[in-house]
Amino acid sequence: MNLHSSVKRKLGEDKGYVFDKRLRYNVRQNESNCRFRDIVVRKEEGFTHVLLSSQTSDNNALTPEIMKEVCRALGNAAADDSKLLLLSAVGSVFCSGLDPSYLIGRLSTDRRKESSRIADAVRDFVLAFIHFKKPIVVAINGPALGLGASILPLCDVVWASERAWFQTPCAALRLTPSGCSSYTFPQILGVALTNEMLFCGRKLTAQEACSRGLVSQVFWPTTFNQEVMLRVKEMATCSAMVLEESKCLVRSILKSVLEEVNEKECQMLKQLWCSTKGLDALFSYLQNKVYDN
Amino acid sequence: MNLHSSVKRKLGEDKGYVFDKRLRYNVRQNESNCRFRDIVVRKEEGFTHVLLSSQTSDNNALTPEIMKEVCRALGNAAADDSKLLLLSAVGSVFCSGLDPSYLIGRLSTDRRKESSRIADAVRDFVLAFIHFKKPIVVAINGPALGLGASILPLCDVVWASERAWFQTPCAALRLTPSGCSSYTFPQILGVALTNEMLFCGRKLTAQEACSRGLVSQVFWPTTFNQEVMLRVKEMATCSAMVLEESKCLVRSILKSVLEEVNEKECQMLKQLWCSTKGLDALFSYLQNKVYDN
Amino acid sequence: MNLHSSVKRKLGEDKGYVFDKRLRYNVRQNESNCRFRDIVVRKEEGFTHVLLSSQTSDNNALTPEIMKEVCRALGNAAADDSKLLLLSAVGSVFCSGLDPSYLIGRLSTDRRKESSRIADAVRDFVLAFIHFKKPIVVAINGPALGLGASILPLCDVVWASERAWFQTPCAALRLTPSGCSSYTFPQILGVALTNEMLFCGRKLTAQEACSRGLVSQVFWPTTFNQEVMLRVKEMATCSAMVLEESKCLVRSILKSVLEEVNEKECQMLKQLWCSTKGLDALFSYLQNKVYDN
Repeated sequence: MNLHSSVKRKLGEDKGYVFDKRLRYNVRQNESNCRFRDIVVRKEEGFTHVLLSSQTSDNNALTPEIMKEVCRALGNAAADDSKLLLLSAVGSVFCSGLDPSYLIGRLSTDRRKESSRIADAVRDFVLAFIHFKKPIVVAINGPALGLGASILPLCDVVWASERAWFQTPCAALRLTPSGCSSYTFPQILGVALTNEMLFCGRKLTAQEACSRGLVSQVFWPTTFNQEVMLRVKEMATCSAMVLEESKCLVRSILKSVLEEVNEKECQMLKQLWCSTKGLDALFSYLQNKVYDN
Repeated sequence: MNLHSSVKRKLGEDKGYVFDKRLRYNVRQNESNCRFRDIVVRKEEGFTHVLLSSQTSDNNALTPEIMKEVCRALGNAAADDSKLLLLSAVGSVFCSGLDPSYLIGRLSTDRRKESSRIADAVRDFVLAFIHFKKPIVVAINGPALGLGASILPLCDVVWASERAWFQTPCAALRLTPSGCSSYTFPQILGVALTNEMLFCGRKLTAQEACSRGLVSQVFWPTTFNQEVMLRVKEMATCSAMVLEESKCLVRSILKSVLEEVNEKECQMLKQLWCSTKGLDALFSYLQNKVYDN
Repeated sequence: MNLHSSVKRKLGEDKGYVFDKRLRYNVRQNESNCRFRDIVVRKEEGFTHVLLSSQTSDNNALTPEIMKEVCRALGNAAADDSKLLLLSAVGSVFCSGLDPSYLIGRLSTDRRKESSRIADAVRDFVLAFIHFKKPIVVAINGPALGLGASILPLCDVVWASERAWFQTPCAALRLTPSGCSSYTFPQILGVALTNEMLFCGRKLTAQEACSRGLVSQVFWPTTFNQEVMLRVKEMATCSAMVLEESKCLVRSILKSVLEEVNEKECQMLKQLWCSTKGLDALFSYLQNKVYDN
């Protein structure tokens, strides 16, 4: 337990950004979002706004419970009259990926059962993005790490604040790629940069991510939210049919490939977490992060 | 009728460029090109030069008749002894895509019949590019919009003048993607930028298009034509067999995918133009453009 | 014979770089590398280092014999306990592709037999990269031409010195694409730039190759080797299982496509070298290079 909290603190400090909870938006809680604990859902004129705002993890890290809340919100937005979905985050971090302290805690209690449960949660979370039929606009306010970066190519329009950066340090964290990034990242960034991110933990700045195509436009942090809102509201005036059919044309050809890749990636994670070797590597890495300094 | 001409005028003014017919090249009319009305075809040493030079539409907008002329020119060039095809345009606009006033005029007379006829013409036009076996070099002198931008990835070498820019504002125009751009644009520009172009009408400058891979080189406007001619003549000294076989290697693996995508895209356009809802959205958009100002 | 040496000299001078054999590294010959003549293989802590260092061709040009040595080194590295492979070159040129004087010499003796033998050697060389399961890091110290550039997308991390540049002047050399570049280059660089490289001999600087995704990072020449070594040693501390499984996820979906493309490309080369027309074009080009000046 003590280990976990020190791992968490260490990971936080390492990333070199401040987590000032006071900076978090004062989120209006209304009846439509009070059913969620770690995300906020706002029904706006023509679109649904989902904000990551985790109360149960640091830095909007993902746990199976949080991923399930996102899936539920996507399910609701798919069925209502909104034309598109805006995904963003409360705080200074967009999403730090799978929560490492959660992984350690759970996998050390019941490796076999927990590795299945967590990998299945990742699979369903990623599937929810693959299957969502309305356009998803994602606004990246700050660091997007691991699974938090991997899912971006499954969204349709990706805007970033100058403060955003992107990292998928799989090999260093003793993890294999997830979120279909083993397929989408090489398509967008090329194999060389993808592998440098996976194997060497290469960080991409917002500008680099934009020039390589992961992000389509970068905005100034102070006006980021206004710029995004302006454009999303404009998009929401388009014909719902044209938006959905255009997305369908762009995406349908890849859907079965992405499903297959997602399945493979999650199988691999499960296998890794189940194996003594894979798990030991993960544990020793995280312990080294704490004691090594 | 009055509506149509005001729509046309409005669209022209909106685009913010001048259509000085006097700037058009003095095109030598010889027997090989006098069979065409809206394009000019010149047989040069080792290559065929096709120029969009529409007399029946503004800004080199495309109508089924013009697209058929291009198909016919491509058919001729496929059969003759030229090694490659150069596609460019007369005037200050490369191609403004499907002619909106033509669409309104025809679809309001006989929606069912005309939607089929126009969609079929688009399909055959795009197929002609997919099936053309010799390299196509395209020289973009100015704005390339809608279908005029979508077909660029079906060409083999794409050079642009600094004055060129690119836009596929499908959602704003109440249209779905065409020219296989729902497949080729995400491959080249990434999904995020593709969708920002489709959904938000994002314009790409020549330099942006070059840095993202849609265009391979940008030239200064004053020397653009010379630079292109120099390079095309150099290319035309290559072995015809090597040119054709190299293109075949690069393209053959994608041919069936592109055929399928083209079919789907045109089906969607037909369906959209046939539906009261889709047509009303298109009409109201174009009327708003006129009266809204 | 006289022709061949003058062709060789001319090609060397044309490329505008110096081949000072004295600049070549003083390569320590130990028992593990003494079995190779044109490459050097060093077993390092956690990785295998293969250096192109051709004694039988100029500018690290490739012959069937040299390609077979590389295949053998890859086979050894696949079986030993190294976690990854580093590929680099001795001298100021990374690799100048298929040796043109070798091609002329052999194809003029027995066209039918030699075209098969050389094309098969190319096929097996490329297959060795496609099938290699551990990550390959490639460090490009200088010019990478033809097949020497084509194989880069089959490697996993591609780092280049500021002095590197890239060219695949297939059409000018009367050759068709090889090394799967007819598939991988359009994926990474877009069709337009790929074709400009194939058809017009467009050169890419290290920075251009990096901004387009062929290379993931460019380093200063004076510290290039240290920077690469630092990163490779860091990578070699990762879990071997994670490295191999991550590569498998990124690559497995493309393996059968690449095999098919490689087969087609080599069939085409064989056919070209077998045909009087194709061979004459190649010969006359190389002779022109010599006498034309």
